[in-house]
Amino acid sequence: MEDLPAQPSSPRGLTYGVAASQVLGLAVITMTGAWLGQYQGGLAWENASLQFNVHPLCMVIGLVFLQGDALLVYRVFRNESKRSTKVLHGLLHALALIVALVGLIAVFQSHQKKGYPDMYSLHSWCGITAFGLYFVQWLLGLGFFLFPGASFALRSRYKPQHVFFGGFLLTLSIATALLGILELLLFRIKDSYSSFAPEGVLANILGLLLVAFGAVVGYVLTREEWKRPPVAEELALSMDFKNLTDESSLASPR
Amino acid sequence: MEDLPAQPSSPRGLTYGVAASQVLGLAVITMTGAWLGQYQGGLAWENASLQFNVHPLCMVIGLVFLQGDALLVYRVFRNESKRSTKVLHGLLHALALIVALVGLIAVFQSHQKKGYPDMYSLHSWCGITAFGLYFVQWLLGLGFFLFPGASFALRSRYKPQHVFFGGFLLTLSIATALLGILELLLFRIKDSYSSFAPEGVLANILGLLLVAFGAVVGYVLTREEWKRPPVAEELALSMDFKNLTDESSLASPR
Repeated sequence: MEDLPAQPSSPRGLTYGVAASQVLGLAVITMTGAWLGQYQGGLAWENASLQFNVHPLCMVIGLVFLQGDALLVYRVFRNESKRSTKVLHGLLHALALIVALVGLIAVFQSHQKKGYPDMYSLHSWCGITAFGLYFVQWLLGLGFFLFPGASFALRSRYKPQHVFFGGFLLTLSIATALLGILELLLFRIKDSYSSFAPEGVLANILGLLLVAFGAVVGYVLTREEWKRPPVAEELALSMDFKNLTDESSLASPR
Repeated sequence: MEDLPAQPSSPRGLTYGVAASQVLGLAVITMTGAWLGQYQGGLAWENASLQFNVHPLCMVIGLVFLQGDALLVYRVFRNESKRSTKVLHGLLHALALIVALVGLIAVFQSHQKKGYPDMYSLHSWCGITAFGLYFVQWLLGLGFFLFPGASFALRSRYKPQHVFFGGFLLTLSIATALLGILELLLFRIKDSYSSFAPEGVLANILGLLLVAFGAVVGYVLTREEWKRPPVAEELALSMDFKNLTDESSLASPR
């Protein structure tokens, strides 16, 4: 590390914010695992009850932690090349999608084995909305920003929408996780929940940690002076695949 | 209306966005009322069961609709004087606080009359966090922006925090409302919920409308070119109560 050339440093507040988000994110995953292991019998794919437990763990890893980290890469690697950062952003979202898909298969298969009905609760409605839109957003991101087709003007028009929906989908995913926690508690420990059973308290704290993760990620992303500084290289990279006949759009990217 | 002098118009997209938010917000309030009236026996303060129903209606009016509209005033009245807009913002938040307080009293009194335990569920933990922070944010806003004490430099430093936490608290309030909907359904119609009883479907749609309200308000607030344009008057107004000995801070507000 000492041999690396000096490079522009990140603002200290940004470093603390990102560190806090990672501590909270890992705490969320650990507590979800602890809850499922300690109180819900652990994980297994073949057993219908334990297969269900794969669902919350995968959704929290995929649609909360990995999705959040995918949004943070433009802040964490704000001095790296835009192209590498973009590829990392796309890869983290792809990983999040795959992990979330495993989580979805787990709950549908588990319900099917047990003969439980699907898709009737507010949790499931919000969840399928979040997952469906997340997949669409990933495809649009790939089409607009990684494939060569889209012009610079089109990319500039779509980018604010992509950024807004990224934040919205992380928020909706976290809200869906909160609904999932409450639903599971009211199904499994309804009576002892109201007398502050340790499992209920643990899961409530997990819920607040999820909120805190979302708040810290949201804070880091919206802080104006922590945004990626525009560097000379960026315009050139944005132009990489640019349709060369479209140069007039350069002067006014909006 | 025709006789008013011409004034700077708002961007058309902003007008549509605000209109959509109001339609969604009123739909949310109407559907909450319809749910409580049609399926939960309506509202009454003296009857413990019906007093409970005051809770969801007040929280949705106060911490969702009025809170959301309080955030939107800086976009809707982007060409009016900053001082009037600021006062309207503070008043809408004050009204939201009062309505929400009535909603809180309703649920605690109703629980007490029925001997139900309080504050054990994730809904209640998120809700009390949202309400407590909302009250603190309102006090801080009053202290920093409406009372004469704070210097221009201090206001400029606090403003981005105030804006971020405003968005965060609206989001947390909506997530808490979703938790409340799910909790009520699982308490009252758990069995028929899974067979798509009309009440459950209605309440799920209400949940999605709440999400849509939050999304539209969030979109309007974060759209860069819809932000309030800085006008000459504003600096003067920010200076209204400014400590006159503090002029050095003017040059660099951050």
